[in-house]
Amino acid sequence: MRRTLQLAALGGGRTSPNPMVGAVVLDAGGTLVGEGFHARAGEPHAEVGALRQAGDRARGGTLVVSLEPCCHHGRTPPCSEAVIAAGIARVVVAMSDPDPRVAGSGLARLRAAGLEVIEGVAGSEAHRLNRAFVHRVLTGRPLGVLKWAMSLDGRTALPNGDSQWISGDAAREWVHRLRAGCDAVIVGGGTVRTDDPLLTSRGRRDPEPLRVVLSRGLDLPAAAWLWDTTVAPTLVAHGPGAPQKRREAFDRMVQASAGDSPAIDSAEVDPADPLTNASGPQRLELPACEPLALLEALAERGCNRVLWECGPELAAAAIRQGCVQELAAVIAPKLLGGPPARTPLGNLGFESLVKVPCWRELNRHQLGRDLLWELEGPQPPTAPSDPPIDGWGSASPRSAP
Amino acid sequence: MRRTLQLAALGGGRTSPNPMVGAVVLDAGGTLVGEGFHARAGEPHAEVGALRQAGDRARGGTLVVSLEPCCHHGRTPPCSEAVIAAGIARVVVAMSDPDPRVAGSGLARLRAAGLEVIEGVAGSEAHRLNRAFVHRVLTGRPLGVLKWAMSLDGRTALPNGDSQWISGDAAREWVHRLRAGCDAVIVGGGTVRTDDPLLTSRGRRDPEPLRVVLSRGLDLPAAAWLWDTTVAPTLVAHGPGAPQKRREAFDRMVQASAGDSPAIDSAEVDPADPLTNASGPQRLELPACEPLALLEALAERGCNRVLWECGPELAAAAIRQGCVQELAAVIAPKLLGGPPARTPLGNLGFESLVKVPCWRELNRHQLGRDLLWELEGPQPPTAPSDPPIDGWGSASPRSAP
Repeated sequence: MRRTLQLAALGGGRTSPNPMVGAVVLDAGGTLVGEGFHARAGEPHAEVGALRQAGDRARGGTLVVSLEPCCHHGRTPPCSEAVIAAGIARVVVAMSDPDPRVAGSGLARLRAAGLEVIEGVAGSEAHRLNRAFVHRVLTGRPLGVLKWAMSLDGRTALPNGDSQWISGDAAREWVHRLRAGCDAVIVGGGTVRTDDPLLTSRGRRDPEPLRVVLSRGLDLPAAAWLWDTTVAPTLVAHGPGAPQKRREAFDRMVQASAGDSPAIDSAEVDPADPLTNASGPQRLELPACEPLALLEALAERGCNRVLWECGPELAAAAIRQGCVQELAAVIAPKLLGGPPARTPLGNLGFESLVKVPCWRELNRHQLGRDLLWELEGPQPPTAPSDPPIDGWGSASPRSAP
Repeated sequence: MRRTLQLAALGGGRTSPNPMVGAVVLDAGGTLVGEGFHARAGEPHAEVGALRQAGDRARGGTLVVSLEPCCHHGRTPPCSEAVIAAGIARVVVAMSDPDPRVAGSGLARLRAAGLEVIEGVAGSEAHRLNRAFVHRVLTGRPLGVLKWAMSLDGRTALPNGDSQWISGDAAREWVHRLRAGCDAVIVGGGTVRTDDPLLTSRGRRDPEPLRVVLSRGLDLPAAAWLWDTTVAPTLVAHGPGAPQKRREAFDRMVQASAGDSPAIDSAEVDPADPLTNASGPQRLELPACEPLALLEALAERGCNRVLWECGPELAAAAIRQGCVQELAAVIAPKLLGGPPARTPLGNLGFESLVKVPCWRELNRHQLGRDLLWELEGPQPPTAPSDPPIDGWGSASPRSAP
C-alpha cells in the first residue's frame, strides 16, 4: 500500500477535480506484475493502467489500490467492471471514495462479483494525501491554504510598504512548489495594484494553476502580469456591485490584449477544461463578492485545493467564512518594527483569548534561514453534517456539485 | 573540559557579576581527584574548590579549568597563586578572562612559575556559556535578551487588550526558567499599569532576579505586585524629567508599604549586595530615561544578563540603542487578527528591506503546542573598538566599569 500511495502522489497537482490514486497488481503468487497512477483528469484511472500492465497475469491475483474503484461512467468507464473482467481475486483498498456517486458501491459491486475485499489499509495516510479532494467532495468547496511570509515580529512589510523580500531564496522557491500543488491561487485587487505579481509555479505545474483576482470594484490596472494568459489562465471575480463602466472597461481591455497576444494553437486547448480555455483573463460575476461564493465557483471549475496569497483583509474574511483549512507561514529571522507596518491578518472578531482556537502542526522546517510552519485548522470538516465551529464563521457546508 | 563546562553551568544565574567557572584536578597519573565550580559571587572560585578537594594529590597533576585563573585580589585571593602553591604541573584552560584586571596575566603568572599552560580547549563552547559575562566586560552593559509571546499572525494581544494567555503552560513555565538565568527583568511603566506582573522565576533562582521598571513619568499604580519586595527586589528607574511630586509620592508609598511588610531579618541581607538590600522598591534617577542609561546602571549593579519583558515601544527603543543581543520569541499556533490588535515591536526606523539584518538561530524547539525560536543579533559586539552596526543604533560601547 505504501507503494500505491507513492504512485498516487506522482499525480499531485494535476488530477483535480479527481483524487490522486495509485494501484499495483500482484499475480496469484504475490509477484508485482503491474503499476499505475492517475496522471490527470480525463486520462485512465490508476487501476486500469496497472491492470493493463499486468495483462493475463492479473488473473487470480490481488489489486492494491489507494482509493475505492469507481462504479460509474464518468469521462472513463467504471473501474470496478475492469477489475472483475481482469479476473482479480482480491482487492485491498486504503479508503472508500467519499464521492456520493461511489461511496461504497464500488466495493459492494466487487463483493457481489465474489471478490475478496479488504478495506482501511493505511487509511489515514490515504486520507491525508487526498484531504483536499475529500474536503471538496464533503463541503462543495476546495480546501483553502493561506500562505504568508512575515518577519519574526509579525510584519509583512515595512511602514513604507517595502515587502520585497522578507523571506530568502529558498522560501520563495518553496512558494513555487506550493503553487504547483494547488489548482488556483487567489489574490485581491489590492495585491494586483501594489505588487503586480506573476503567481505562477514557474513551470513546476502544467497547466499552471488558475490565477484568481477577487475584486469588489474592478478597480484594476490596465497593465499587469496577470493579464498575460499565455503564461497561465486568469479569472477575475467580482460581486453584483461592480460598476457597469468598470466591467465594460475590463472586457475591452481583455479584447485589446487578446489582439496583442501570440495566437494560441487551438489544438492545444482542451475544450472540456475551462481553466485553460481562455485567450485572456475571464471575468466572473459571483452572487456576492466574498470568499465563500468564490470557492463555490472554483469547486464547480474542478478545484480541489486553492492557495490564498492575498492581503490581510481578504485573508481575514476567508478565515471568518471557513475558507481556510491550512496555514503556511514563513517566518524570517528579521525584525521590521511597527505599528504602521503591515501585518498578515485583518480583524477576526475575537473578544476573548479563551475562544481563540489552536491550529495543529502539520510540518515545520527550515527554508534557508527562514522557518516554515504549516498547520491545519482546529476542526476541519469531516462530513456535511458537521456543526459550524465556534469562532470559525458559520458557513454551512453544502453537498458536492 | 566538557566536565568543567558542566560544572560551570551549575552556577548559572547566580555568579554575576562574575562568570560561571568549573574546574577539575587530575593527579599525576591522570585520575580525577577534585572538582569545583563557582557557585555565587563572594564564594570560593572553582579552582580553589577543586584544589581543596584534591589536597596533596594535586601535586604534579593537571588543573582543567573553563576560564583563566584570576591573578588579582577581589573578594577572594588570586587563584593563580593557589594553583602554584598546590604544586600543579600543567593547566588546561578553555579561554582567557576578558576582564582587564586579568586578560592573560593569570596565565602569564602560571607560566612564569614554570607550569605548562594549554589554552583554547573547547574555547567556543566556553565563550558561549559565558557570553553574557564577556559582553558586559567588553561593552560595560549587560547582555540583553528580548522575549515575547505572540500568535502566528504576530499579535501580542487581542484588539480589546486581552493577552492572557497567548502561550500555553509549557511556555509560561519556560519563562520562569528564562528569568532564573537572568540578573534583572525589565518592564516599562505601561506594563505595570496594564498587566501588574509578578516577574519572578517562581523560586527557580535565589535570590530572585532584580525586577526593574523604567518609567518616564513615574505614573505608577499605588498597589502592584512589584512593590512587595519580600518576594524579590524591585528597582524603579526614571530620567531627570520625572515630576518632583510623583517622586515624592513614590517615596511615601515605599515608606508606607515598608511599614506593612513583614520585617526582614537583617542577618539575611547581604550589605554588599545592593540587589537584595531593600525593604521596598528602590528609586533610581538615570542621566536619561532610556535603555542604554538603564543598562549601564545595571552593569554597575553587577548584572551580566537582563531580560526585556516590556511593551512594543520600549522594546523597539532597546533594539535601536543596541541593548538587545538575543531574541526569544514564543509563537503560539493561533490567529488573533488585527490591525487594532497589538504587536511585539514599535517602529525601528528601517526604510528598505535590504538594510534589515538577519538574526542567527541559537535554538528552536517545541514548548507544548507553542514554538520557541531563540536567535542572536546579527553582529554581537566582540570588542570595545567594534564600529556601530548599520541599522542597530549607534550607541558606542564603552570600557568596562
